[in-house]
Amino acid sequence: MQLSSEQLAALPRRYRAQLINCLPGFKPAVLVGTADKEGNSNLAIVNSVFHLGAAPPLLGMILRPDPEGTERHTLENILATKSYTLNAVPASHVTAAHQTSARYPRDTSEFTACGFTEAALEQSHAPGVSESPLQIACALQEHQELAINGTHLLIGEVVCLSLADGAVREDGSIDLAALNLAAVTGLDSYHNVAPGQRFAYAKPDQDPHLLD
Amino acid sequence: MQLSSEQLAALPRRYRAQLINCLPGFKPAVLVGTADKEGNSNLAIVNSVFHLGAAPPLLGMILRPDPEGTERHTLENILATKSYTLNAVPASHVTAAHQTSARYPRDTSEFTACGFTEAALEQSHAPGVSESPLQIACALQEHQELAINGTHLLIGEVVCLSLADGAVREDGSIDLAALNLAAVTGLDSYHNVAPGQRFAYAKPDQDPHLLD
Repeated sequence: MQLSSEQLAALPRRYRAQLINCLPGFKPAVLVGTADKEGNSNLAIVNSVFHLGAAPPLLGMILRPDPEGTERHTLENILATKSYTLNAVPASHVTAAHQTSARYPRDTSEFTACGFTEAALEQSHAPGVSESPLQIACALQEHQELAINGTHLLIGEVVCLSLADGAVREDGSIDLAALNLAAVTGLDSYHNVAPGQRFAYAKPDQDPHLLD
Repeated sequence: MQLSSEQLAALPRRYRAQLINCLPGFKPAVLVGTADKEGNSNLAIVNSVFHLGAAPPLLGMILRPDPEGTERHTLENILATKSYTLNAVPASHVTAAHQTSARYPRDTSEFTACGFTEAALEQSHAPGVSESPLQIACALQEHQELAINGTHLLIGEVVCLSLADGAVREDGSIDLAALNLAAVTGLDSYHNVAPGQRFAYAKPDQDPHLLD
């Protein structure tokens, strides 16, 4: 079936939100850890983290705060402290991770409410998540409120990386499936992911082939 | 193990590129279809498509062109025509999809070279990919070269959506795992994804629970 922009615009609001949130395909399940200047922590699940560059190591993230939403506290803490952590969610913890999306009051830490443990990361005001095998401390480098729809683009430089031992392969890549991380689709679906197939660098005059 | 920013900066270039590209976690495998003004088509795999908003339906994408890279032709076509398509890659086609990342000459279409078929989408100058069960035509709304590292942020509005029949659930969500789409990690790994668990909208005073 084909849907035109007019047909998309005519869809009921929640139906369209479900549909459009599915369009990017598989997304990472990431818990964003922050703390205000007094050290009160906050934790929120997001699925819009993306790679921006390796030298310097930069990651982008979209936050879509509404006045009552959970992402509002996260955004305020990041702007106040320039510090946040990105923590990959293991498949074993998707229930608790999803629960961080509930609208807890400002003085409630989702770490406590949802059963996660704060981890100290070097050069990071914001706490990591002990239960995550891949914790990334970021220093905010750029913040834009996008004029097109008021969402916020945050660009962070990786200042500390905490990884399960043995997770990094000889060439620097990480076997994320072996870490049993979860993928997300849409607003509310969490998936296990199978081991991957790795392909060699592609060349025009060569047939594609798998890495060993 | 923990790595500091100094340790990250000291890593060999390729090792660091492999490592940092893995940090976002699972990413969508997406083929970007474009055509120049004369209709010569181009196809390139990317894994940095993300959701920006549902009303209007907006998707973001990062392109990291280098002077000889395959993403250069894609960027040039998008800027010239304001039109591009995002096509989810089925797991059955990851070998051919990865091969589009080879540096083919400008006058070679990766559709032909890699065995994909152009599909016509309403309101779209750019061709879709027939082999994809989820084809999205976008009209460019915003383009920024990010000062921080010269990557390009492209924001597109969805103007046409072509989906396999039966792919959309009653509430508007798409069962992407049932479409047998691939997830990507790092620069070169392609994964199958298991059926998902769906959680109800989370509330502070309620235990998390699964949707039926």
